[in-house]
Amino acid sequence: MKHQEIINRAIKAVHERTFYAQYPEHPKAYGDELLTKGQTDYEAQIGKAFTELLQTGETGQIGEENSPYSREDLGITYPTFAVEDLVNKAMTAQKTWRKIPIHQRADILVEALERSSKRFHEIAWATHHTTGQSYVMSFQASGPHAADRALEAIALGYHELGRFPEKVFWEKPLGRMSAKLEKTFKPIPKGIGLVIGCSTFPTWNTLPGLFANLITGNVTIVKPHPKSVYPIAIYVAEIQKLLAENGLDIHTVQLAVDGSNQLITKDLAEHPSIKIVDFTGSSEFGNYIESLPNKTIFTEKSAVNSVIVDSAKNLREIMRNLAFSVSLYSGQMCTAPQNFFIPASGVLDDDELIPYETVVDLFRNEVAALVLNPKMSAGTLGAIQSDATLERAQNANKRGGTVILPSPKVRHPYFATARLCAPTIIEVDADQADLYAQELFGPIVLVVKTKNTEESIEIAQKMATEKGTLTCAAYCTDNTKTATIIEVMNEAFVPVTLNLTGYFWVNQHASFSDFHGTGGNPAGTASYTDPQFVTKRFVWVGNRVSVV
Amino acid sequence: MKHQEIINRAIKAVHERTFYAQYPEHPKAYGDELLTKGQTDYEAQIGKAFTELLQTGETGQIGEENSPYSREDLGITYPTFAVEDLVNKAMTAQKTWRKIPIHQRADILVEALERSSKRFHEIAWATHHTTGQSYVMSFQASGPHAADRALEAIALGYHELGRFPEKVFWEKPLGRMSAKLEKTFKPIPKGIGLVIGCSTFPTWNTLPGLFANLITGNVTIVKPHPKSVYPIAIYVAEIQKLLAENGLDIHTVQLAVDGSNQLITKDLAEHPSIKIVDFTGSSEFGNYIESLPNKTIFTEKSAVNSVIVDSAKNLREIMRNLAFSVSLYSGQMCTAPQNFFIPASGVLDDDELIPYETVVDLFRNEVAALVLNPKMSAGTLGAIQSDATLERAQNANKRGGTVILPSPKVRHPYFATARLCAPTIIEVDADQADLYAQELFGPIVLVVKTKNTEESIEIAQKMATEKGTLTCAAYCTDNTKTATIIEVMNEAFVPVTLNLTGYFWVNQHASFSDFHGTGGNPAGTASYTDPQFVTKRFVWVGNRVSVV
Repeated sequence: MKHQEIINRAIKAVHERTFYAQYPEHPKAYGDELLTKGQTDYEAQIGKAFTELLQTGETGQIGEENSPYSREDLGITYPTFAVEDLVNKAMTAQKTWRKIPIHQRADILVEALERSSKRFHEIAWATHHTTGQSYVMSFQASGPHAADRALEAIALGYHELGRFPEKVFWEKPLGRMSAKLEKTFKPIPKGIGLVIGCSTFPTWNTLPGLFANLITGNVTIVKPHPKSVYPIAIYVAEIQKLLAENGLDIHTVQLAVDGSNQLITKDLAEHPSIKIVDFTGSSEFGNYIESLPNKTIFTEKSAVNSVIVDSAKNLREIMRNLAFSVSLYSGQMCTAPQNFFIPASGVLDDDELIPYETVVDLFRNEVAALVLNPKMSAGTLGAIQSDATLERAQNANKRGGTVILPSPKVRHPYFATARLCAPTIIEVDADQADLYAQELFGPIVLVVKTKNTEESIEIAQKMATEKGTLTCAAYCTDNTKTATIIEVMNEAFVPVTLNLTGYFWVNQHASFSDFHGTGGNPAGTASYTDPQFVTKRFVWVGNRVSVV
Repeated sequence: MKHQEIINRAIKAVHERTFYAQYPEHPKAYGDELLTKGQTDYEAQIGKAFTELLQTGETGQIGEENSPYSREDLGITYPTFAVEDLVNKAMTAQKTWRKIPIHQRADILVEALERSSKRFHEIAWATHHTTGQSYVMSFQASGPHAADRALEAIALGYHELGRFPEKVFWEKPLGRMSAKLEKTFKPIPKGIGLVIGCSTFPTWNTLPGLFANLITGNVTIVKPHPKSVYPIAIYVAEIQKLLAENGLDIHTVQLAVDGSNQLITKDLAEHPSIKIVDFTGSSEFGNYIESLPNKTIFTEKSAVNSVIVDSAKNLREIMRNLAFSVSLYSGQMCTAPQNFFIPASGVLDDDELIPYETVVDLFRNEVAALVLNPKMSAGTLGAIQSDATLERAQNANKRGGTVILPSPKVRHPYFATARLCAPTIIEVDADQADLYAQELFGPIVLVVKTKNTEESIEIAQKMATEKGTLTCAAYCTDNTKTATIIEVMNEAFVPVTLNLTGYFWVNQHASFSDFHGTGGNPAGTASYTDPQFVTKRFVWVGNRVSVV
């Protein structure tokens, strides 16, 4: 197997959970040539039909991507297909894909990532101008980080599929005789998968489910968000080309593009032949997906993320770290902190009691300083992906509570029309749950004034249990309180990141080391990549043959 | 750890899947003393309150066990408890049990099995006179086989809980700097488990879920079937005693006995604090359990099991094997074959074409010969557990189709009143699906006359997909057809047992080697013991601490 070494290293990394990356995250690591080529290829694609897909049965062309920076349509169109045709072709492809040896599946999938990695710059431009992420973030999130997450799914799938022996001889002593059986153990794929993408992370949230399906023998239909198709279309095209080169059915992976006014998501998800659904998006739609009977469902839905501030070593450094966390991609990360629980009694900073108002001031000032710094502003904030998020952010000052930082006016150095929006910070009281007990997707931050840290913890747990939480950042120098925060949040299946400062942020979940999502609270049922993320996609079946 | 070696051997056995048994299945392997003591203890318990449970808050006494042999009440009563009290005590116990180191949990659980193994004979008598199983089967199923299944769950749980490192140092290079984090990975238990037992296999179907819960840190309430409490009460009592010896909350495991007219199953299952439910029983109730929102559910429900007869080396030997399979415990095993698909064109027996009628004759004669053999009859058939099953079996001749073997009159050598009933064999046509497309629990066998093996396979798959199937026995000497049978049935997540003769039967699923249930078709969602049987009971959570 050509890629055995990559697989082996990845399996080891998944189990060791120390730092590991197959794909370097720095754009320059891929050489100047690819960097230039990526931009050229991107520019050549603008305004044209995307013709790289090999799948057949096209019924028309559709495309509605629009740059959050230039506000201009990308003018790229994609072929459309009838739902029944997509499903029928998937069913035919499934007949061969399920029988392909696991090592061959793994080889093809790793090779698809290797080839896609040559196009990370084009993927980055495509992501930049559909999601609004900064170029560097687009590169990292849609390129190396997404590919590493995909490799993680391949690796864990490969490991689990080989967990039990293919064949054993079983002999049970029965007095003078014995019963003799030859037993074979097969991981049988569940069927056809559907992966529903989101507009903000079109590849990072799609590749894990797609590659987990494929390694476990399940052909897959990818239904991207109509506003962010191009980045994932490149990955799908690369896989299809490899399938063709290997003489396999290219309909093993199909891209199912639709339009905002002609959505086919429900038709696909409800189709009885679709057995596995991966979804990233709102809780409302996610709950509907979870309610579909007789399907294996993985969701990542809305999350209300918490910051618990109790005590610190250097409060200013902490606030600088948090200011970046809330500003990065204008809070449009599922892992971005939203609710900052700060005790009215103040915060101990290296033995000095800092009054509540000063703590809030420090935070506000760091956010303002960051977003108003022309060297940092646009590159950190990126642009707002959708009009709906922009509208919510712009009206944040009207939702109640006390606006303590009106969204600072910011502008993009090149795109005057860019959907730019810096965070609004609103102060609310702990008893105003109606103001903070929901995800406010985008650049909206709530400072929740609590009686004390005990109340902060209590509310943070309640949010996790009732609304769902993906991340909790905590700042605490007291060992006993720290233990309580961790215990209480973990009990609600929320990971805690403690005392983070410097150049790493709570928003970041590292492939091969951090689980992204726990699957244990209403923020979703998926975890990238715990064993269940792959094992739920197939069934162990053991056959026995009498040996006489 | 006292029992590390047992755990290690069991983990190895689970992954090797060759023959392994921690507990010998022969009653005499435990010595004469225990054999005698078991019977004495059983007899001393009859007619009295069961006083071994240590749990508190008793509200009364209840007991309705009745021997399927003597038809007399056992007269044993068990304490009853209020549902809220059971749940509250479980919640308190959960606070400590979840924090106990995994190796200590494993030690206690293995020790509980070791101690219970000293009482296998008492458990056997208790099973014999509540389920109607023969003494030997009672001993094996409720004793060593159940304990081995429990050990399998402990072992796989122990392995999965240790799958990821407790603590790692993670350092990500960032140019001249690096991000440094200490990460800890914790398997967090989901909460309180409820294990709902059945009347025919009161320990074999209860221990896997119970021990899987306990090893993964979830305290458990065991709700036995009111007609079969005594066998599982012994295991629960042994665990409670060990908990007490170790200074732990004895309410970590509670027995919740109810009465047929005051069932508390739904109150428990629907309770929001119950997070995990294991259920064995009818599809009707199982489907209700599966529909409960926000719970992790494991079910084993009704199954329509198939036999596909195509061709053979020695048809008589095959029919002898199958006659035993359908007679064993009067077809009251979830794995017992029910629908025998036999082609109208006949069956090749070592190159000789045996006409359909002769094949059916051979089968009928072997069943009659077995159940009318006084040395075999009662010991094989056991007794019918419930009046409902007896009534169904006695009226089988009125359900349609052609009765080709009216249930032969059989009698028990000691118990004139025993609920004994030998199989009825009914012949139906392939197009009479209404007569065979459902589980007919008990001694009812259907011979389904098909056009050919292709039709047999097609119907068997349809039954699996629509009604659920746990086992498929196939007889075929043609390699191509064999491959098709295996592929088609495996696609419906049904294991195939091929060409079985001699002293092993399709009904038998061996611990550490055979998966019992695949969880992939309507026969249930549980598989003893695939990795998901333990991993679904906890959630991986990773915490991170900044290292400066």
